[in-house]
Amino acid sequence: MAVKMELVRIIISELGEQQMIYLREVDGTRTFPILIGIFEATSIDRRVKGEVPMRPLTHDLLKNAIEKMGGTVQDVVINNLSEHTYYAVIRIEKDDGEIVELDSRPSDAIALAVHYSPHLPIYVEESVLDEVT
Amino acid sequence: MAVKMELVRIIISELGEQQMIYLREVDGTRTFPILIGIFEATSIDRRVKGEVPMRPLTHDLLKNAIEKMGGTVQDVVINNLSEHTYYAVIRIEKDDGEIVELDSRPSDAIALAVHYSPHLPIYVEESVLDEVT
Repeated sequence: MAVKMELVRIIISELGEQQMIYLREVDGTRTFPILIGIFEATSIDRRVKGEVPMRPLTHDLLKNAIEKMGGTVQDVVINNLSEHTYYAVIRIEKDDGEIVELDSRPSDAIALAVHYSPHLPIYVEESVLDEVT
Repeated sequence: MAVKMELVRIIISELGEQQMIYLREVDGTRTFPILIGIFEATSIDRRVKGEVPMRPLTHDLLKNAIEKMGGTVQDVVINNLSEHTYYAVIRIEKDDGEIVELDSRPSDAIALAVHYSPHLPIYVEESVLDEVT
């Protein structure tokens, strides 16, 4: 089963390569951090702060590409943790109703999720949550 | 008319925000630089050097998203220059044969082009080339 989470914190440090985001259970108290790259962290941070770029940046382009191809992004799911690495999928409904799952790093998936208003739902599999909280 | 170009040089400097790539005419000698961000420059540089990441990075994700939606990227075209800013489109053939054009920064378009093997064709409109060479 997947548990609905929300992005509650973004910590960007110019000193290191790795940045941190925190997800928290929407109907509960469990929370955990994910290390992500500076590019994805900046992309998430800007959007959460409501900054809309003059030109489509890379995650805007990803969103536009999916929409232009007739897809509607449903949600993102962090569905696995293996050797300290999180894995995610982006779930997209095609115009014929078929649901396709796109493998993604959690950072890109969450960046895409916050490019929608309201943000797309972010889920984490119970098994992953059990391991990290 | 659009002129076929190739990516001939990537200059990455850690000192500034802006990086530079050079495009050169395939059947001629005209060449010009485009300033791009460090993220896109790194994405291009890694691919040109043949580095394949362990996990799909953002431009891999873009490529996978388009393919999963049944699209085939044809080429990218830098089609406008306005107030020192270049504009581009990514041309995609959908599975029903329709061609859709996706607005993009040239940096993302070129990053996507070099994620294919062989690289996708990169075109620049004659009018743009006239202005900068």
